Amino acid sequence: MIGHDPDRTYRAVVIGAGSGGLTAAIGLASMGHHVVLVEAGDIGGDCTNVGCIPSKTLLHAARTSIADPLAHTRKRRDELAHEEDELIRNHELIHLVRGWGSLTAPSEGPHVVRVTDGATIHAIRAEHVVLSGGSQPVTIDIDGLDAARTLTNEQLFELTDVPDSLLVVGGGAIAIEMATAFAAIGSRVDIVELNDRLLATEDPLITDEIESALATHGVRLHLGTTVARVVGDVAHLADGSMVDGVDRVLMALGRRPRLDGLGLDQAGVEHTASGIVADGWGRTSVDGIWAIGDVTGNTASTHGAGAVGRRTVRAIAFPKLPKLGSMGAVPAAVYGSPEVASVGRSLDEVSRIDERSRLRLVVRYSDIDRGFTDSIERGVLVLDVERFTGTIIRAAITGPGAADMIGMFTMAIDHGVGLRSLFDMVHPYPSHAEVLRQAADDFARITYPSLPREWLAMARGRVRRVRRIRRR
Amino acid sequence: MIGHDPDRTYRAVVIGAGSGGLTAAIGLASMGHHVVLVEAGDIGGDCTNVGCIPSKTLLHAARTSIADPLAHTRKRRDELAHEEDELIRNHELIHLVRGWGSLTAPSEGPHVVRVTDGATIHAIRAEHVVLSGGSQPVTIDIDGLDAARTLTNEQLFELTDVPDSLLVVGGGAIAIEMATAFAAIGSRVDIVELNDRLLATEDPLITDEIESALATHGVRLHLGTTVARVVGDVAHLADGSMVDGVDRVLMALGRRPRLDGLGLDQAGVEHTASGIVADGWGRTSVDGIWAIGDVTGNTASTHGAGAVGRRTVRAIAFPKLPKLGSMGAVPAAVYGSPEVASVGRSLDEVSRIDERSRLRLVVRYSDIDRGFTDSIERGVLVLDVERFTGTIIRAAITGPGAADMIGMFTMAIDHGVGLRSLFDMVHPYPSHAEVLRQAADDFARITYPSLPREWLAMARGRVRRVRRIRRR
Repeated sequence: MIGHDPDRTYRAVVIGAGSGGLTAAIGLASMGHHVVLVEAGDIGGDCTNVGCIPSKTLLHAARTSIADPLAHTRKRRDELAHEEDELIRNHELIHLVRGWGSLTAPSEGPHVVRVTDGATIHAIRAEHVVLSGGSQPVTIDIDGLDAARTLTNEQLFELTDVPDSLLVVGGGAIAIEMATAFAAIGSRVDIVELNDRLLATEDPLITDEIESALATHGVRLHLGTTVARVVGDVAHLADGSMVDGVDRVLMALGRRPRLDGLGLDQAGVEHTASGIVADGWGRTSVDGIWAIGDVTGNTASTHGAGAVGRRTVRAIAFPKLPKLGSMGAVPAAVYGSPEVASVGRSLDEVSRIDERSRLRLVVRYSDIDRGFTDSIERGVLVLDVERFTGTIIRAAITGPGAADMIGMFTMAIDHGVGLRSLFDMVHPYPSHAEVLRQAADDFARITYPSLPREWLAMARGRVRRVRRIRRR
Repeated sequence: MIGHDPDRTYRAVVIGAGSGGLTAAIGLASMGHHVVLVEAGDIGGDCTNVGCIPSKTLLHAARTSIADPLAHTRKRRDELAHEEDELIRNHELIHLVRGWGSLTAPSEGPHVVRVTDGATIHAIRAEHVVLSGGSQPVTIDIDGLDAARTLTNEQLFELTDVPDSLLVVGGGAIAIEMATAFAAIGSRVDIVELNDRLLATEDPLITDEIESALATHGVRLHLGTTVARVVGDVAHLADGSMVDGVDRVLMALGRRPRLDGLGLDQAGVEHTASGIVADGWGRTSVDGIWAIGDVTGNTASTHGAGAVGRRTVRAIAFPKLPKLGSMGAVPAAVYGSPEVASVGRSLDEVSRIDERSRLRLVVRYSDIDRGFTDSIERGVLVLDVERFTGTIIRAAITGPGAADMIGMFTMAIDHGVGLRSLFDMVHPYPSHAEVLRQAADDFARITYPSLPREWLAMARGRVRRVRRIRRR
């Protein structure tokens, strides 16, 4: 319902109605608690309005050649946004207050959140405050580039015409997904990325495939450089090259947490430039103040915000329940063509593990039979495991089914299932999932040198069998 | 290499060079054993020549509108068949003998296999015999139907022109896959199936989706009937209806093991009409005689034959190694559009479990957010679990990614991971894999009534959240 009771002390105030905030507010309300939800913008936050939902809808529309993909995307997005809006406005236990929420100095009693909406200021009391204000796109000033041609994800889905050309600045998930989508619906797409490769958080074996796939789809890559200035419709890059005929420029340079105006310092909540310091339960440095999602910098995905948000709800609603174990592995996915997904330790963390105690396994889709029947040229599984146990440290996949197959690796990490026992796992033939089987075979071959060298060359896959034995 | 030494006692004779036989022969040879491989037909057996490889290649060609899909399919198939043929012919430890292999009466010493090739008869001695002769298509006589128009999978991929119309008799995996492929490349396809639904080994919730998908692709279904007779190009069905303009008829009525001429009775090998009796290691009733793959009726897939074949190799090559545990779960998959995959107990086995100790969870793709962004109308996860523990008894999925996602369920079954702990598993948003997350949520909601009823309604998925709360 709209509005709140100023005399009441609520169970919680949730600041921000995006992925994390909705999980917290609906979760607590579902348990019978009255919750105030503070939001100045659209219910659903970035995910519903300018993130996951429109981007994946557009990617689908592009893949399946739906007529007027941009209008289709907006229509679907608006349907869901409307439903979410109705849900919150009509919820008996969720009290929606429009405006900007801010913490105040700590008091002995309940927390007080000040909500400012133009000239109106409310003070709302609650036992708990959940900070879930999300993040905003990082932008840079480019000499000569006018605002009218500049987009972030916040304006992108409002385009009514497919731009003739789109210059994407940045090389992360949003850049890859939107370059894929706009190239498929008819824009000429250029990506300019300062790093010497796309998706720098992933292994070069993965990003190589992504770069080559984008190139095949007509996307031009300008790596290791940046846009120095724009003159008319010509972008001059720092490396001296030029991109002409630039219609629109999409800033896809990453996200930064929305910390301004939250009153973190007044309330004594520890934070850095990368976000509010919080643990896997959402606990901040101040008792009763929680932070989840992009505002923390811990997770930068709807599923990450949701996973922590559920734990926050559990901790607030059932403070006496025994604590759950540490949070399971949180996968990441990029829904380009092909998809990319990864789970486990970061590349940096892997590189800090002594090389003698880890092992890297690389299986290409072209080495499995589904790769043969489907003529899959690009696709690879990169697996870092403990050398002797086969325990999975990190898995990264690009190729068909990556975002669905990563589940096997997430489960294996969560439950300590290593390659040694996965050697006996049976996968449907011929499925993409056979990349895991091949990795388990390779692990066994490398790890058990006491077995005759070729014991494991008896491949289960026809293609791999032929290739393996030929290489002898 | 071609030929054998009549005076030698080989480590093994393998009868049949299909999926199971190649796994056994190459596996044993890889360990340094001399093996005789007996095959009258093509190396690679059904899978390479007239099964998985051409069918999946054709499905891919149909999906991606490759020009002349039948020629493309044959070309790819022939490339692989040629490679396998070369591999076997040039293998130093595999002795290829052309002809039909047959067991002889038991002797005190090594087993003797008689190989007949026209007038030539060889007797080959070996310590072990592996029976892997595969299966052959079941056919029926239809009054008025001439052989020239009748196909099984053995002739299907030799077609050089796409038939104007294809009448498929039968409703299993081959029927569904080939109906999907031929409808996509331009044939008018009719399926006539005696059961009142397709794929009778799967749950009606699954087969409903498949039937509706086929109908959308233009395939006409004639269920609960059979072809009584063919007059000219008109098929008269037993229910009185007619299919006219019948060009080709594909018999897809299942497979039966190739037992004739194997000499099973002479050698005393136990068998039934459904196949040679063998365990998960391939052991038959006679010491030193093994049977794997379709010839046993235990598994009817390349991955099933391969999984048992690897164990047979291990048992023959390392008889003193400790026995492995029982074989893991063996999934099944049908690569239609959408895919179907299942794993765990059969429907019959599930139905024999007391209803009070099991629970069925059904999640539709339309209930998860990827279903929303991708407008997925058809797709469902059907999960049978133990009521209190959440241990997975059987999982069946139809929808995008089914054959890859089934891996999570195979792993869960193999490692005893139940829905209770899967409640905490994090899946990429928005992936198809979220059907598992939703099932885990539903399980918790049903199973923990002590928790406030709506604790679990705090959905992680936007779409599901809206729908769930609306239904209250």
